[in-house]
Amino acid sequence: MILTVTLNTALDITYRVRSLRPHSSHRVTDVTERPGGKGLNVARVLAALGHEVTVTGFAGGLTGRVVREGLTGVHGVADALVPVAGTTRRTIAVVDQRTGDTTQLNEPGPAVAPAEWNAFQEAYADLLAGASAVALCGSLPPGVPVGAYAGLVRTARAAGVPVLLDTSGEPLRRGVAARPDMIKPNADELAELTGSHEPLRAGQAARRRGAGSVVASLGAEGLLAVTPEGHWRAAPPAHVRGNPTGAGDSAVAGLLSGLVEHLPWPDRLARAVALSAATVLAPVAGEFDRAAYEELLGRGVAVTAEAGAA
Amino acid sequence: MILTVTLNTALDITYRVRSLRPHSSHRVTDVTERPGGKGLNVARVLAALGHEVTVTGFAGGLTGRVVREGLTGVHGVADALVPVAGTTRRTIAVVDQRTGDTTQLNEPGPAVAPAEWNAFQEAYADLLAGASAVALCGSLPPGVPVGAYAGLVRTARAAGVPVLLDTSGEPLRRGVAARPDMIKPNADELAELTGSHEPLRAGQAARRRGAGSVVASLGAEGLLAVTPEGHWRAAPPAHVRGNPTGAGDSAVAGLLSGLVEHLPWPDRLARAVALSAATVLAPVAGEFDRAAYEELLGRGVAVTAEAGAA
Repeated sequence: MILTVTLNTALDITYRVRSLRPHSSHRVTDVTERPGGKGLNVARVLAALGHEVTVTGFAGGLTGRVVREGLTGVHGVADALVPVAGTTRRTIAVVDQRTGDTTQLNEPGPAVAPAEWNAFQEAYADLLAGASAVALCGSLPPGVPVGAYAGLVRTARAAGVPVLLDTSGEPLRRGVAARPDMIKPNADELAELTGSHEPLRAGQAARRRGAGSVVASLGAEGLLAVTPEGHWRAAPPAHVRGNPTGAGDSAVAGLLSGLVEHLPWPDRLARAVALSAATVLAPVAGEFDRAAYEELLGRGVAVTAEAGAA
Repeated sequence: MILTVTLNTALDITYRVRSLRPHSSHRVTDVTERPGGKGLNVARVLAALGHEVTVTGFAGGLTGRVVREGLTGVHGVADALVPVAGTTRRTIAVVDQRTGDTTQLNEPGPAVAPAEWNAFQEAYADLLAGASAVALCGSLPPGVPVGAYAGLVRTARAAGVPVLLDTSGEPLRRGVAARPDMIKPNADELAELTGSHEPLRAGQAARRRGAGSVVASLGAEGLLAVTPEGHWRAAPPAHVRGNPTGAGDSAVAGLLSGLVEHLPWPDRLARAVALSAATVLAPVAGEFDRAAYEELLGRGVAVTAEAGAA
């Protein structure tokens, strides 16, 4: 079983409006809802790849109930979310039908009490016993200490479970110091962590800070991996147009599944890039287009070894 | 008991953001929720004025449950909402903290099935038996026929219950033809109904179309009443600054309470204007500031008889 952790789960709501004009009133023409938060998105993709996945984190209130009900319909995903007295946040993506652009409104999430945080850490330790790998994903809700991920990384390492950390800011900085096996920052997050805007140099700096391997997502340029076994770049065959929502989470699912299947790095990266591009191409935000994924994987994502010492 | 009808109830959600920029991502700094829809707002103000109120209309799904739970805490308001299989809509008001401006996103509401519409009409007829007045408020959810308000006006008139209609567009046009005792359009709604942008002339035209009395809300200029007993203008003593959300609903509550208390028109209008201004002045959108209300009423809203034959 692969474990994904989403401390700040969400009910992701998408609104379509004809044209978004600030300070005026809009009739929403279409409403869709689905369970969200990075770790839940990762879990859905892992399950679609045939892995057994367990999701944990917090869920509470009526939106928490909607999230949990939404998960029951996803084959291969087991719900081990921990109850919280507060209400799970909503995120609202407002899609302008005229331009296709999205405006995002993210609620902060429920305040987590110390007793709830302790209950989560106990549940997490128990779940690790059956896990082949764990992904720690996304932002922290109010009340969870900023060093939360550092503690969760240490617990996973003590249990001998490989751990991937996908977050940003101070939680990432502290989490990296606890030596996770892998981090997957985007270019901005990596620059914020290391102070360097040159991805290869920044990846090497992040490894020196404690990350076992660094896989940086560089948007349309694909992925850059800085690992103990070498450096690689992996890019889709052509520029991919569509909705990038969830593309990073699909990349995490590709990396994590490749890790537990003991794939060599170039194959892991090819899978991650193909999944990511197939997510951008899918008509529904955050889903991946399976035919596009298989075609991208078959046509060969370009994975090239990077010059320089490993 | 005063009855208010809200066919398209809502969970009104307010988000505060530092500054709304289309096509970017926003952290919501504050989230508030309350039961909404015009008739529910009217009912809250009537209850605060000491009247017993019953609310009906539709409620369904988890948001419907949140709306009903929110109503249980309001003293003087009885919940007679009719269940619907669909989910009650949300409305989202995004307040830009930099400018104070509000951007509104309104979900369409649940599709109402013919059997649900029939069940509502039966419940409505039963409730009218105990009502001293009824207000029909707001937009129609999908599935409810466009002539719905015309039918509800006729039922009220047959039961001898005075009826106030506050809606817009084609439902207003058809409803007026059924001869409601009062309508409360804003300037735009009145112009759309009659084709005239001159409020006094338009009010007279609306009376000829079937409205017993017309009270037009003219924003900062207050109210214009065109009634069988005469024409009046009522305006607050000074320009009132604040959030106009709910000001029209407070005016409806003032008019309706004045009607059941058999107040003369100038007193009804003074109350409606004072409530409306006290709503604009209140820090919470849609609430009214009681001290401001009493002060405005005491200082005397200016009510002046309008020239021309009654």
